[in-house]
Amino acid sequence: MDNSTFDYKKILQEIQPLYKEPMGEAQARMDEMIKPLGSFGKLEKISVQLAGITGKVINQIHNPVTIIMAADNGICGEGVSGSPQDITYLQTVNMTKGITGIGVLSSHEGSDLHIVDVGIMRDVKIPGIFSDKVMYGTHNFAKGAAMSREEAEKAIQVGIKHVWHLVKEKQCDLLGTGEMGIGNTSSSGAIAMVMTGASAEEAIGKGGGLTDEALKRKKEVLTEAINHNGPKKEDPIDVLAKVGGLDIAGLVGCYIGAAYYRVPIVVDGLISAVSALIACRLNPLIRNFLIASHRSMEPAYDIIAREIGLKPMLDMEMRLGEGTGCPLAFHLIKSACSVMANMATFKEIQYDESFRVDIREGEVQ
Amino acid sequence: MDNSTFDYKKILQEIQPLYKEPMGEAQARMDEMIKPLGSFGKLEKISVQLAGITGKVINQIHNPVTIIMAADNGICGEGVSGSPQDITYLQTVNMTKGITGIGVLSSHEGSDLHIVDVGIMRDVKIPGIFSDKVMYGTHNFAKGAAMSREEAEKAIQVGIKHVWHLVKEKQCDLLGTGEMGIGNTSSSGAIAMVMTGASAEEAIGKGGGLTDEALKRKKEVLTEAINHNGPKKEDPIDVLAKVGGLDIAGLVGCYIGAAYYRVPIVVDGLISAVSALIACRLNPLIRNFLIASHRSMEPAYDIIAREIGLKPMLDMEMRLGEGTGCPLAFHLIKSACSVMANMATFKEIQYDESFRVDIREGEVQ
Repeated sequence: MDNSTFDYKKILQEIQPLYKEPMGEAQARMDEMIKPLGSFGKLEKISVQLAGITGKVINQIHNPVTIIMAADNGICGEGVSGSPQDITYLQTVNMTKGITGIGVLSSHEGSDLHIVDVGIMRDVKIPGIFSDKVMYGTHNFAKGAAMSREEAEKAIQVGIKHVWHLVKEKQCDLLGTGEMGIGNTSSSGAIAMVMTGASAEEAIGKGGGLTDEALKRKKEVLTEAINHNGPKKEDPIDVLAKVGGLDIAGLVGCYIGAAYYRVPIVVDGLISAVSALIACRLNPLIRNFLIASHRSMEPAYDIIAREIGLKPMLDMEMRLGEGTGCPLAFHLIKSACSVMANMATFKEIQYDESFRVDIREGEVQ
Repeated sequence: MDNSTFDYKKILQEIQPLYKEPMGEAQARMDEMIKPLGSFGKLEKISVQLAGITGKVINQIHNPVTIIMAADNGICGEGVSGSPQDITYLQTVNMTKGITGIGVLSSHEGSDLHIVDVGIMRDVKIPGIFSDKVMYGTHNFAKGAAMSREEAEKAIQVGIKHVWHLVKEKQCDLLGTGEMGIGNTSSSGAIAMVMTGASAEEAIGKGGGLTDEALKRKKEVLTEAINHNGPKKEDPIDVLAKVGGLDIAGLVGCYIGAAYYRVPIVVDGLISAVSALIACRLNPLIRNFLIASHRSMEPAYDIIAREIGLKPMLDMEMRLGEGTGCPLAFHLIKSACSVMANMATFKEIQYDESFRVDIREGEVQ
């Protein structure tokens, strides 16, 4: 199907809320289990959320996939990144071989990768990389808009299309979001600053590779670039186009698609969280379809997490991006399904009412 | 073998440090992988730790087991728990059927449970529960010592014996720690207060089942009981005997055994963390064999975690105990093994030196 089939404005309007009735049934079943009320914490919340997404009380995850949006960022021209842009291409190719972080963890978990070139600088004709290049990397947003509004919209539609493909043609029932794009902590940092009002001091982190001097420069570059471009906070597409990136726009499309086609989608890391923030600003219903995996070490992550109410399950001190927290989160989400399907209820074990009251109010640690 | 074979004092003295050379090799291998240095965070640290424990750079986990120490606590006589003591027995029996929280998560992960009666009030003759009862529950430590020093030592030896059995006879290569014992947030809270100097206000939480009034009473009871018994902070066995529990003592033995027989052991939840604290005070080398799974919501957990330097990987807001974080952590530990075994190094992919420098210092999220 053509990308233009996926009219994101129309799709945004057609996203439906969570199904309340199955959520109520799911919560009731959880409350009937032989454990103190609510004591399974986030596993419990996820299993209720899944019921709201799918309409079924008992869910199973058969086919989880991490989508990787790969694109280059013109802002690298300002020396804000420790790596040259070509690493985007090289690591995207390495991803197809399963030898990078996300590949190893995905194969350990038994989940797949779906890699999309939405804007790598080079021509890419490699088996295992889906080609949907909107442009050869963004422009340097220190000097003008990263891309046009139309280009940002096109990248969003790429994201929706790939979710459609995965859900409708490949029967994926759980999605994760990853990226590869040298310079994308700068674009996502800039978006975070504009959308949340945070200063560079609050939002921009050192990452793994920057010296104190380079960090200072990164903060200055981003602050100036925002002033120069004047992105409108109340118009997320404008922000995306002016100081964002194609990978981020592609991921925004993934969130829209996941909500529209009703599959849970994992938010992992800073770039992914920034994209989720934009998607939620476009339609707050999208929030209901998100599950947060890993807490990023970049300071902007916590700001965004508070903003959209994400509480990550994992704190692994990882900082290699690529969506590496997704396969780890997939396992936890499958565990939540297993609790809902397999844990005994008071009814099933036919205990008397006193045991029921006792254990429900019981011990915790 | 008889419990007395496992002379804990002798075993404590014979614990060896981590093997430095394989740790150095493991770290070097991690540093050679196609990712920014250190970017796999805790997964990286765990795989290096495993090398120090086993002596091998590449490790695989074949047979992880969560040990459950089940015992009753006389302090329940003070009304500090929302549940009657008999729930200890009933839920321990339910554990053998695989229908409680830990059972469901263990079977989802493909790990086993090993359940030990180290002090349940009732006689227990149920297949799947190993009987090593030291006594029929502890005494009410509001009125005197919970147990004698000899009884505490006996329970420690029970723990060591079961680790010996699991490691030497069942080839377990990863252990987790769980418990079942109504009233054990009181005994563990009291130990935490004595060992860390924290006040009841700082250390004692509401848990899931206590009213404000009951919480207030729990704090008073524990503060008074500590004053009454006068446990000696510098003598962990004295603290364990005076205000502790048999499940805790059993878990202390598990940590000692894990360090002695050189298997990694997962710390999960408050009771487990308190036991780890005592074990580390008996021999600080034990710290090297611990891996923290889930952050408990009880305030004492954070105090102890700081004290022995545990940084939990999971924040699931779970509070049902039983060692439920262990199977979730097992999966993460296996993921760490998979990274060490399967991720490409620069040498393997034969990139030139510039790529190596670039990516190592590269992007983070």
